[in-house]
Amino acid sequence: MMRKLKITEMHRLTVEQFKDCVKMPVVVVLDDVRSMYNVGSVFRTSDAYRVNGIALCGITACPPHPEIHKTALGAEDSVDWQHFDTAMDAVRYLHDEGYKVFAIEQAEGSTALQDWQVGNFDKEGKNNAKNPDEFVKIAVVLGNEVKGVHQEVVDACDGCIELPQFGTKHSLNVSTTAGIVIWHLAQQYLL
Amino acid sequence: MMRKLKITEMHRLTVEQFKDCVKMPVVVVLDDVRSMYNVGSVFRTSDAYRVNGIALCGITACPPHPEIHKTALGAEDSVDWQHFDTAMDAVRYLHDEGYKVFAIEQAEGSTALQDWQVGNFDKEGKNNAKNPDEFVKIAVVLGNEVKGVHQEVVDACDGCIELPQFGTKHSLNVSTTAGIVIWHLAQQYLL
Repeated sequence: MMRKLKITEMHRLTVEQFKDCVKMPVVVVLDDVRSMYNVGSVFRTSDAYRVNGIALCGITACPPHPEIHKTALGAEDSVDWQHFDTAMDAVRYLHDEGYKVFAIEQAEGSTALQDWQVGNFDKEGKNNAKNPDEFVKIAVVLGNEVKGVHQEVVDACDGCIELPQFGTKHSLNVSTTAGIVIWHLAQQYLL
Repeated sequence: MMRKLKITEMHRLTVEQFKDCVKMPVVVVLDDVRSMYNVGSVFRTSDAYRVNGIALCGITACPPHPEIHKTALGAEDSVDWQHFDTAMDAVRYLHDEGYKVFAIEQAEGSTALQDWQVGNFDKEGKNNAKNPDEFVKIAVVLGNEVKGVHQEVVDACDGCIELPQFGTKHSLNVSTTAGIVIWHLAQQYLL
């Protein structure tokens, strides 16, 4: 009735096909992320949703590394990445490249994730999310496990996106947050 | 302009307040999840979105454990959990308790996550997601990091929910998947 698919039935891309395919116009920026498990997991999710690239900033570790590989499982070979000395450098670079940059943070005046329509940023001011050419390019900045995104980086961003939370803890895991944000963008760009 | 909130400004619940608050009618079932990082991360996300409980099945480790604590960061004390010898036992128990149980799997005839309206299951057959009393209770089963959900467990479920994926790898990380699924449910139950 509900037979699980075999790997050969999933029709996944080869790394070469991935390099050539149309990506979401989305860059994920990691600002001093300490855990290589988190870095690897962000690569894996970015592979699944065709993220355009990952900016690894400051102390964030870069591939190749066995600890990154443990959770990336090879996605560090498909998804493009670049290292920046600081997240401020990455934000400046991305602004120069025409990206709108958003910090994922709990901050005054933030937009709740569920209300964030990247379609608001198309050339006509309409939500026309099925046509990637119409979109301004988007970057999202995720911060350190303890300190979050540096305040100066937040200040340099075009806005803050917040995941509303209703429990006892103050934040979600970095790789979980990245997954939810990338999934939110994939629904507007890919699905 | 976009000042990050202090922890005291986030108005989080105490563990006692969490125990008393209205939960989402959602149970997360972990079927032979190997990594305690994944278990801890599922606790942390379940805390943020007021999941009713977690069923830890088979080899899935239970709190208290230092490795679970590393990613749960105390959420293992707020979110209710119960151990079952097998996920089949958990599915039987949940069915007896009136839950509809869904495997998160890539399978024939699965429903894509973005199309999954838990509102379809209210008493009037309408999507009336803002009134939790109208909903059938939902359980989601997440499987082992390598083998996924056991086929016999999939067969015992009321349906399969699939996260469409477009990259080179065959699956997402378990804790990332849990985060995306819980966020999807939170948007219908909580937001």
